[in-house]
Amino acid sequence: MKSLILLSGGIDSAVCALIAKRKGRELYGLTFNYSQKHKIEIKKAKRLGKEIGFKKHWLLKIPPIVFNSSSLVNKSLKVPKNSFGSEKIPSTYVPGRNLVFLCIASAIAETEGIDEIYIGANSIDFSGYPDCRPEFIRSFQKCINTGTKRGVEGTPIKIVAPLLKKRKKEIIKLGKSLGLNFSLTWSCYNPINGDLPCGKCDSCIIRKNGFKMAKIEDPLNK
Amino acid sequence: MKSLILLSGGIDSAVCALIAKRKGRELYGLTFNYSQKHKIEIKKAKRLGKEIGFKKHWLLKIPPIVFNSSSLVNKSLKVPKNSFGSEKIPSTYVPGRNLVFLCIASAIAETEGIDEIYIGANSIDFSGYPDCRPEFIRSFQKCINTGTKRGVEGTPIKIVAPLLKKRKKEIIKLGKSLGLNFSLTWSCYNPINGDLPCGKCDSCIIRKNGFKMAKIEDPLNK
Repeated sequence: MKSLILLSGGIDSAVCALIAKRKGRELYGLTFNYSQKHKIEIKKAKRLGKEIGFKKHWLLKIPPIVFNSSSLVNKSLKVPKNSFGSEKIPSTYVPGRNLVFLCIASAIAETEGIDEIYIGANSIDFSGYPDCRPEFIRSFQKCINTGTKRGVEGTPIKIVAPLLKKRKKEIIKLGKSLGLNFSLTWSCYNPINGDLPCGKCDSCIIRKNGFKMAKIEDPLNK
Repeated sequence: MKSLILLSGGIDSAVCALIAKRKGRELYGLTFNYSQKHKIEIKKAKRLGKEIGFKKHWLLKIPPIVFNSSSLVNKSLKVPKNSFGSEKIPSTYVPGRNLVFLCIASAIAETEGIDEIYIGANSIDFSGYPDCRPEFIRSFQKCINTGTKRGVEGTPIKIVAPLLKKRKKEIIKLGKSLGLNFSLTWSCYNPINGDLPCGKCDSCIIRKNGFKMAKIEDPLNK
């Protein structure tokens, strides 16, 4: 069976890749350059894909116009610090990001005869993005079932989101047990000088808390 | 109210644009270069967008890898002739095309504060593509409702598909009544020398039958 991994370069998608690898899948990777400020994650994703052993790893570009209202993309908006835990959807929200990523992944999967798509979406220790929740993943699966040839002919491409309801600490423990090289992952939205985690954005805070609760040392935060 | 029109350059999407215009919407256009062999439709779409009066018209490129199993894209596959009416989904099917187009449109709409997306999908006189059917449009709307900030906050972007259940002849009549300049539209999948309709692909046949039944002359087929 062939699996396409949406690999951002973060811990969650890397753990997904290793879960699929443990199942003996033939692995394909897909990473997006969507003009994110934290471009370093793309470099990390490429090296990670090599280390994990992807048969192919596609890197696609999404034009800045598509996501330009997000503070992760728009240079005139600041990535917020210490905002984690507020009830609101933060400015780092990227409009329809997982929707766009999953759609393109589905098209490639159908084009290339790939059976399932792994996405590291997580709705427990997360920033409140709507497209990381189970109800979104379910409704996207329905889109695939109704809108693609494989869906209609009875063997729909399957969206696999194994981390949806896991705590960050569990994901980190799982990563460790699967041999993940955490130094090849990246979480920070707002790297200092391009390659030093800021320690203050939502993503840094979630990562830091996760490692702390898992009682594992983060090689990026010694 | 602002509307984003998925404008392919064909009759259906052009009629959608005119429907939105008649409603007094502020019009935005989105056209894709997905390495389709019938690139002439992009040129037509650009001119049409100008004539209709789009406030902005985005042209985005989808890399060939995404849709490369379709005979509309892959140069080693021939666009079939005279296959219209068979029960099977034809080789011109582009994996997840409307899914990808609608996802990117949704992201742009959320980014730009646009309220609705018009798509010319049609499930009556059509080639049998699964992503042109009402059940797909419904499930996509659900994805938007669950997966985007606007969906979650109560004012989801609306997918408008006014032609879903119309016959081609009705669409052509509607186009005429709305003043559509049919010479600026394009349907053929397999143009001869790049700019002459082949007359034999599914799309030419559907167009020809539609004009004939509407008792209207097609300026591209005199």
